[in-house]
Amino acid sequence: MPNPILIEVTRAARVESYHTGAIAISTPDGRLLLSLGNVSRPVYARSAIKSLQCLPLIESGAADRFGFGPAEIALACASHTGTERHTALAGHMLQAVGLSEPALGCGAHQPMSASAARALIRAEAKPSQLHNNCSGKHAGMLATAVHLQEPTARYWEPDHPVQRRIRKTLQELTGLPFGADVLGIDGCSVPTWAMPLSSMAQMFARLVTGEGLEASRQAAAHRILASCWAEPELVAGPGRADTILMKKLPQRIFLKTGAEGVYCGGVPALGIGFALKIDDGATRASAGATVALVERLIPEARGLVDRGHIKNWHGAEVGTIRSSPELERALDGLEV
Amino acid sequence: MPNPILIEVTRAARVESYHTGAIAISTPDGRLLLSLGNVSRPVYARSAIKSLQCLPLIESGAADRFGFGPAEIALACASHTGTERHTALAGHMLQAVGLSEPALGCGAHQPMSASAARALIRAEAKPSQLHNNCSGKHAGMLATAVHLQEPTARYWEPDHPVQRRIRKTLQELTGLPFGADVLGIDGCSVPTWAMPLSSMAQMFARLVTGEGLEASRQAAAHRILASCWAEPELVAGPGRADTILMKKLPQRIFLKTGAEGVYCGGVPALGIGFALKIDDGATRASAGATVALVERLIPEARGLVDRGHIKNWHGAEVGTIRSSPELERALDGLEV
Repeated sequence: MPNPILIEVTRAARVESYHTGAIAISTPDGRLLLSLGNVSRPVYARSAIKSLQCLPLIESGAADRFGFGPAEIALACASHTGTERHTALAGHMLQAVGLSEPALGCGAHQPMSASAARALIRAEAKPSQLHNNCSGKHAGMLATAVHLQEPTARYWEPDHPVQRRIRKTLQELTGLPFGADVLGIDGCSVPTWAMPLSSMAQMFARLVTGEGLEASRQAAAHRILASCWAEPELVAGPGRADTILMKKLPQRIFLKTGAEGVYCGGVPALGIGFALKIDDGATRASAGATVALVERLIPEARGLVDRGHIKNWHGAEVGTIRSSPELERALDGLEV
Repeated sequence: MPNPILIEVTRAARVESYHTGAIAISTPDGRLLLSLGNVSRPVYARSAIKSLQCLPLIESGAADRFGFGPAEIALACASHTGTERHTALAGHMLQAVGLSEPALGCGAHQPMSASAARALIRAEAKPSQLHNNCSGKHAGMLATAVHLQEPTARYWEPDHPVQRRIRKTLQELTGLPFGADVLGIDGCSVPTWAMPLSSMAQMFARLVTGEGLEASRQAAAHRILASCWAEPELVAGPGRADTILMKKLPQRIFLKTGAEGVYCGGVPALGIGFALKIDDGATRASAGATVALVERLIPEARGLVDRGHIKNWHGAEVGTIRSSPELERALDGLEV
């Protein structure tokens, strides 16, 4: 049974392209309030769960030891756009830990921010690992290793204590075993684990409500959310959907995008978490479906993020990116 | 009945994402040798049929009038990468016609070539309309208008004689009416018509064999193909699949990519044309499926184009882009 169409890309009167996928909305105890498409198939969570990969940084005491405040914690949860502020802060985190850029294992790529990328080209400079959108997460992993007197070499490998600790945290949050069959390697070289969207949604329900978590983890989760809401531009960057929505609606919505069409988030006041995956991995569709969902859950979110217009090179609209009838029907039936 | 999966994107042992779509392979008289998925649904042909939109440039006598040789004709069929050679030639075509860059209606975008884009940024220069991947096609349209003493203003609009002539050509080649219901506006502002993949495949079978075309159109088609095979770097650019395959296998294969996951081509010696569309519009999948198909049709094509590896930022392979079992089975059963 194939997944339903979630997003349609139109041109003039016709649907030119479309994206199928699945969405789960869950309570902290795992009750599914929405299950559209196959939410049991394990999908790699990618960057969508950086806020959970960040738990050991807080729980180990490493964040306190190195004086990491909301900015550093938000960057540790980020897929950032590599602006001057992002790279400087990642460098500062490493310095606080007694390390520097070569200690990172994330690899280098051009900054996602177009203006940051242009500035590098004009300076005839190559991007460093600090520009990698995951550099804050990696600096946080290194901080945990140093704090716990673990080796900093090859901290990205699945058998390193840093990655084993993250795996154990995810096991505790989901009840899943996370064996070798669901292990993949992410673009930044750390393990990424495949899990059902239902489990991801439940994890985010727990993260944003604290329900089902022991007190110390509840406090760590609270600190992570408060940090991202305090510094939403560090979690992504100016103009990005995650940043816009968390800047306009702090405390109301937490959300995070991931590669290959994954999106997760939660709404504390409704006591729910959500997770979705576009089958083909397209960001235009994962972002479109997430914005459609968030606008239903929080009416004040309407119109904050452009849901997508297809323009020609003169800027005239020649098409749209819109929710499918199947997605609209599912959202119509949603009771939260 | 949804379309089958054509391409799988793997990470470690799992399929992370997948792309559905449809493929048609046709003879010049419209016999379908392969019909995988829905090949009747009209899909916008986009840039995949630039070689057919180019026919009036030859047939009207405009190409001869302005001294357009293989290079200019190849550029008129191109989605080029905006290198110095491409933009200079587009400028030269306009000059030959007595026009210049502002006469173009395609709009400007950053060159697709990364090195050309970097050079512009270093020079603190903005891209011009000459950098638009369609600038050669537009210069060709303007040449036809000038040659036939038609207005050059708004030559991109559906009612302008230039666009009506292209529509008539496509009607003659497919037997389809092309009414307002299948009219869309392309990224470069000219009309794009939606048609079944079966019709596109038949059109390309006719283009590459000349069968079913009157003598003058046969000669024009032959000249277009010969031009693209003589100047494959002008049709796309260094490193692009279309350029690589036509450079290595001139006279053996003609192919052309289009936006939103469309790909068309033909193999003269086999007397066939093909057309495919990825439902979600992803180029990684349309290119992957096309290369898989071409490698079956022409064994010497094997290994010429990388079918896709997913690498982390250290360059290590963490996944692949591969043909689905459904696509492989369909190709196994293909008799041409």
